[in-house]
Amino acid sequence: MRAVTITTSGNPDVLQIAERPEVKPETWEVLVKVEAFGINRADVLQRKGLYPPPPGVPADIPGLEFAGIVEAVGKAVSLFRPGDRVFGLVGGGSYQERLCQHELALLPIPQNLSIEEAAAIPEAFITAFDALVLQAGLKHSDRVLISAVGSGVGMAAAQLALAYQCRVAGSSRSSEKLERAASFLGQPQSQFLPVLVEDGTFAKKVSTAFGAIDVFLELVGGAYVEEDLKCAAGKATIMLVGLLAGARSQISLNQILARRIRVIGTTLRSRSLDEKIQITQAFGKQILPLFQQGLLKPNLDSVFGVEEIAQAHAVMEADKNCGKLVVKW
Amino acid sequence: MRAVTITTSGNPDVLQIAERPEVKPETWEVLVKVEAFGINRADVLQRKGLYPPPPGVPADIPGLEFAGIVEAVGKAVSLFRPGDRVFGLVGGGSYQERLCQHELALLPIPQNLSIEEAAAIPEAFITAFDALVLQAGLKHSDRVLISAVGSGVGMAAAQLALAYQCRVAGSSRSSEKLERAASFLGQPQSQFLPVLVEDGTFAKKVSTAFGAIDVFLELVGGAYVEEDLKCAAGKATIMLVGLLAGARSQISLNQILARRIRVIGTTLRSRSLDEKIQITQAFGKQILPLFQQGLLKPNLDSVFGVEEIAQAHAVMEADKNCGKLVVKW
Repeated sequence: MRAVTITTSGNPDVLQIAERPEVKPETWEVLVKVEAFGINRADVLQRKGLYPPPPGVPADIPGLEFAGIVEAVGKAVSLFRPGDRVFGLVGGGSYQERLCQHELALLPIPQNLSIEEAAAIPEAFITAFDALVLQAGLKHSDRVLISAVGSGVGMAAAQLALAYQCRVAGSSRSSEKLERAASFLGQPQSQFLPVLVEDGTFAKKVSTAFGAIDVFLELVGGAYVEEDLKCAAGKATIMLVGLLAGARSQISLNQILARRIRVIGTTLRSRSLDEKIQITQAFGKQILPLFQQGLLKPNLDSVFGVEEIAQAHAVMEADKNCGKLVVKW
Repeated sequence: MRAVTITTSGNPDVLQIAERPEVKPETWEVLVKVEAFGINRADVLQRKGLYPPPPGVPADIPGLEFAGIVEAVGKAVSLFRPGDRVFGLVGGGSYQERLCQHELALLPIPQNLSIEEAAAIPEAFITAFDALVLQAGLKHSDRVLISAVGSGVGMAAAQLALAYQCRVAGSSRSSEKLERAASFLGQPQSQFLPVLVEDGTFAKKVSTAFGAIDVFLELVGGAYVEEDLKCAAGKATIMLVGLLAGARSQISLNQILARRIRVIGTTLRSRSLDEKIQITQAFGKQILPLFQQGLLKPNLDSVFGVEEIAQAHAVMEADKNCGKLVVKW
């Protein structure tokens, strides 16, 4: 079978299609013919040699999510059979034509979605669901601030929080992205407030136009965390999911203490199979029906053929996308 | 009735005994004749004008905890009657001869404890219980690090974590305090490890002698938080309870994210009556029996007469105590 491999650390051209041995499902595993996979920033970092994948996944094949068709099942598998359309998360190696996955870490693709749309769901929506709902304990009355709202996770989080009847503010340094995000979400400003980040600041705008924030989905990190603290409500939760702007920050500990704020770091990639199964099953029960009802929709920026993989990486690296980039075999 | 009042912001001599009007219990309230009260660092800060008390408590009477005898009860009170020995937490104003408290925010003093011992319990043990058990979710197998272990809260937290069968490390810059703490706790070093802080560092010592830490009770703040991150286990919780060393810190956000660490700020003082009732009732159910059984014991450094109040404040300010300072009327 074919796989997109990292021939050596470097620019997008180092991604090359190569032949790899076929895989076979274990007892509880499903063999999936991958039809499409989403691109994530972690893939770009891995390609550059800046993000070593966790143990147990191919070091030279990137990819955290996939959608495809069941080709075969292990002898104990009862939830899926050949021909079923499925999608899911992996710790790495989704840029290949076939992969094996535990049946409980797979979900059926809702009938109203294409395979490409399904490939745009797992990393963005499961990250947002896990961070906002399972960890931050999102409530219907919460005010939510999402940084880098034009990113795949940002847009998924905004949709999810709106589906929970929250009031949502989303920030970006690009007014074009904010317009695209607002237009995709199709909500009045009382429900979705686009916030343009200028000179790295946004707290004052958010406080004035929107009020204090209960839950933050922080995808930018760095100095944004200190800004978050400036517009945080008492007992607010800051979910630290990304560090686009840097890994260190000056933090006002007195704000955290006096207002009883929680800062919680989270990442999906390094989780054990048990944890991935738990989160996949919770997502299947609580969130998948919202896709079937059309309340949530994958936010596809564009779909590339696999021969355009370098181009897809270049778009992400240049921060040109608003929503997900998906690649088709 | 008499009260210890702050005549003006300043050194311990500004504390003077003055006459104040008597108080009367509302429907659900208990009138307590205060026999003894504990001293806390917040009282010292309030005396200096650095910690304005929350709304609804006397601005010029410090004090967060008390123990005494019920003198009268409001007409709906059913849990206590005159003559009962009780103790509890207040948002301020415990340095007075009488106060009124909702019956659900009061606890009976265990028979085996004196009033002075009971006055040393609420702030230290309820803070430790709330932070470690209710918020951090302490488990029996956890490794716990307590900074400023010689403080009232530090010693209470160490006892509590040991009672939960945790392995506990406690840090201090004073080897004398570490000796006193270890001797009070009476545990082998495999259960309680004293850690001397030198040049502001402790993470390496802790990692080497003890392993990665699951739960931190952080009473010092400042640069200690960055040290905490260096010896934190995956999914560790840092409870930020005090800021003796400073209100700002450089933080490695990448450590928080990649190891899925939670940093949670907490303070008891500003909580609503509802929250105080909840925590008091939980403490009464889960922890008070451990005092009755002798598994936990108040850690009294010394007891002062009320005319020695300035001296008691001076001892705390000079950081000379190991355990609680209590004042008797």
